[in-house]
Amino acid sequence: MTAVSAVAGLDLHVELSPTRPARSLEAALREAVVDGRLPPDTRLPAARTLATDLGISRNTVAAVYAQLTAEGWLEARVGAGTWVAGQVPAAAAASTGRTHASHRLIDMRGGIPDVTGFPRREWTAAVRSAVLDASATDLGYPDPAGTARARVALAGYLARARGVAVQPEGLVVGQGFGELLVLVCRAIRARGATRVAVEEYGHDYHRRLIASTGLDIVPIPVDDEGAVVTALDGVDVAAALLTPAHQFPVGVPLSAERRRWLVAWAQRTDRLVLEDDYDGEFRYDRRTIGALQALAPRRVVYLGTASKAVAPSVGLAWAVPPADLLPDLLDQRELAGGRPAALQQLALAAFIDGHEYDRSVRRLRAHYRSRRARLEEVVADELPGCALTGEAAGLQCLLRLRPGTDEGRVAAEALRRGLLIEGLRALRPPDLHDAPGVPAMVIGYGGPTPGQYETALSLVVESVRAAAREAGLA
Amino acid sequence: MTAVSAVAGLDLHVELSPTRPARSLEAALREAVVDGRLPPDTRLPAARTLATDLGISRNTVAAVYAQLTAEGWLEARVGAGTWVAGQVPAAAAASTGRTHASHRLIDMRGGIPDVTGFPRREWTAAVRSAVLDASATDLGYPDPAGTARARVALAGYLARARGVAVQPEGLVVGQGFGELLVLVCRAIRARGATRVAVEEYGHDYHRRLIASTGLDIVPIPVDDEGAVVTALDGVDVAAALLTPAHQFPVGVPLSAERRRWLVAWAQRTDRLVLEDDYDGEFRYDRRTIGALQALAPRRVVYLGTASKAVAPSVGLAWAVPPADLLPDLLDQRELAGGRPAALQQLALAAFIDGHEYDRSVRRLRAHYRSRRARLEEVVADELPGCALTGEAAGLQCLLRLRPGTDEGRVAAEALRRGLLIEGLRALRPPDLHDAPGVPAMVIGYGGPTPGQYETALSLVVESVRAAAREAGLA
Repeated sequence: MTAVSAVAGLDLHVELSPTRPARSLEAALREAVVDGRLPPDTRLPAARTLATDLGISRNTVAAVYAQLTAEGWLEARVGAGTWVAGQVPAAAAASTGRTHASHRLIDMRGGIPDVTGFPRREWTAAVRSAVLDASATDLGYPDPAGTARARVALAGYLARARGVAVQPEGLVVGQGFGELLVLVCRAIRARGATRVAVEEYGHDYHRRLIASTGLDIVPIPVDDEGAVVTALDGVDVAAALLTPAHQFPVGVPLSAERRRWLVAWAQRTDRLVLEDDYDGEFRYDRRTIGALQALAPRRVVYLGTASKAVAPSVGLAWAVPPADLLPDLLDQRELAGGRPAALQQLALAAFIDGHEYDRSVRRLRAHYRSRRARLEEVVADELPGCALTGEAAGLQCLLRLRPGTDEGRVAAEALRRGLLIEGLRALRPPDLHDAPGVPAMVIGYGGPTPGQYETALSLVVESVRAAAREAGLA
Repeated sequence: MTAVSAVAGLDLHVELSPTRPARSLEAALREAVVDGRLPPDTRLPAARTLATDLGISRNTVAAVYAQLTAEGWLEARVGAGTWVAGQVPAAAAASTGRTHASHRLIDMRGGIPDVTGFPRREWTAAVRSAVLDASATDLGYPDPAGTARARVALAGYLARARGVAVQPEGLVVGQGFGELLVLVCRAIRARGATRVAVEEYGHDYHRRLIASTGLDIVPIPVDDEGAVVTALDGVDVAAALLTPAHQFPVGVPLSAERRRWLVAWAQRTDRLVLEDDYDGEFRYDRRTIGALQALAPRRVVYLGTASKAVAPSVGLAWAVPPADLLPDLLDQRELAGGRPAALQQLALAAFIDGHEYDRSVRRLRAHYRSRRARLEEVVADELPGCALTGEAAGLQCLLRLRPGTDEGRVAAEALRRGLLIEGLRALRPPDLHDAPGVPAMVIGYGGPTPGQYETALSLVVESVRAAAREAGLA
């Protein structure tokens, strides 16, 4: 149905979907801001007024205002209502991390999945089946390790799809990779660990999480066979956090020889490997590489997540620790005071059991494969001297720039054009930012929505060219 | 449909609900164990075999086995399959906390809600509406403070139902009360706090959570006007954790005079009050007492949860901190590495907006009121010399025993009869267990299922009488 409201003296026509009023109102307001019908510093009507005009609930309007305010489109001015923001907070968005990125910026940082194809109907059906099937035990306080059904479903999936050696009793369900990483670090810290090795390229957030548990970080170099694990020889660390299936963000798998060396090291020296299998499902060119964990279940903590394979809003992840670490991990879970919602765990179990998890992975794999192929075309056609590297897998790869190009310049040119993109250096620890290396940008082809993707590619090309001109390479 | 499988040489007839196969199989197996058709130390068929017999998925059977194993009905023997447990692990259940309590024990500890009436249909409808209405932003990584919609819905509910002074931007969504308590404690610890006052009766788990953040605990006495807050005068603590609406487990509200004193203390000395409003919605006799937070929003951290008002499996709670503590709290959320699932938060928002949250509270209030009334009848008729105390509110009250009765004896007699119940002393810090006090049992009338309630009441009567005889009071 079409509803009309006089917003700021303007008749705002909103195609209100009866089942999705909030979404359609959000879209209408964004569009009105983008096309200038709602100019900066315009005052919006009170939520109650707009709700009455549109025939929807006040809470829906208030939620839309709050959402658009969080995204930077609108501003709440104390005592003076809600206004269209004065300007795009681009720099702010770039510095505050993914959750605050403005929607006016296209986000092409590494590791961000495209959620526009989220299987809404299938997820709803899984919830329905899980809720109807739930026992009184299921509905009460969950087991700290996770609900029995979720652990059975996940163990089955991980054994089948990733070759993980796991029984349901050996698996711990968490809210996200980050939470489980913190719990594992606290558990090994409580056993006396003081240092953990981490690949020199990776999410700064993960380094901050580790450091917050009191552990020091030792960087391991990364080359085109993955982490240079032999650098661990003789180094005093209790564990090494790695992305063996697909190094983040460099995009290469750990070579077979290094996998063997790493496992032998862990066994010989009694150390742990923390295997971050964040996108292990997404390999396009051939069979996925199985989890490293299967080679040494007593020395590897396997860590996986539903954030890439389904969507971050599912909010669930899992750890498979060696059996002797499990009680320590559960102690830390107890002391953290929280457990992932049982209803959400049961829904994921039903989603897996109904094969929807596999379908989601297959669908996204095809989607990312075609985005990657299109990216390769554009780079080959438009950016001579540049090259994509990294396996045909996952959600990101590297765009190697012509020597002499400045990564920071490319990022700045992109930001000026509304594209959020990072140089490879930015994913090193701060004290290694200036270490030598071939310049490269991380291209996260998962982040843009389908409607943004071609624009995003053009902006990459423009920004790289602009930075090359600046460096006298044009 | 009825399905039959030869379990351990026994034709097990299972009324398999097509929509809830797991639930019906669980129930059938429990029943067969209870009535002796499946005797202790009987081996069960492999999950695959039973699944084929019953025409259901192997994962469903494996999940049921895992669930019943976690509950203590079955045992997984390494390399030898699944067996009926040798005996009820009563003592183990009593010591390991609520999540491991065996289902053969009726759980009458304080603070456990009855979830058998969980509004399955209404929750499913809320999820459906939330999922269909979700934007791409909603489906991605959530804001660390919570999704905009959940914060708007919760702020509206708390202002209306509990009188909390809150705007959506000032509210933080968490996984549970315990998680938020930990984050708040870490935030004040990071500001230099070293000690927190806590009511001398309460969950030992909460004390452990606080202690794990490095804070020392100072107990405050409790009498029949609630916490003796004047004991805080001159005591060096940074904050006081209290249950003002309904002291847990004593069951009395903080008197009006003490509320005023407490607020004045917090303002005068620049201390914080942590208001645990765990069951503030459940008052039967008259208007609920509004949140203390409204009297001093800049000195009170309000903490609430969906665990009692809906069910623990919803897995969501909320904090409304003073504005200047909010950034510190969000820093701690970041460092904890996890966020509650966005989809679950959106579902709760839709559940609140559709007035189902209020309906759930009203339904449960009526349910607990009638349980409380029945308990009063039984005590008046069957236990002369004993008396119930605590306001007509919440999920538990105290049963004052005749002087000379030993609380531990009552608990032991109850456990022998299959009832899990705690003495008041057990809810004090360990070093105060033996301090003087009138003997009393905490009666959690939320815990038993409807089918268990009358049995539970009889077992209370029997156990109290047995302990009285033992003390020479019969």
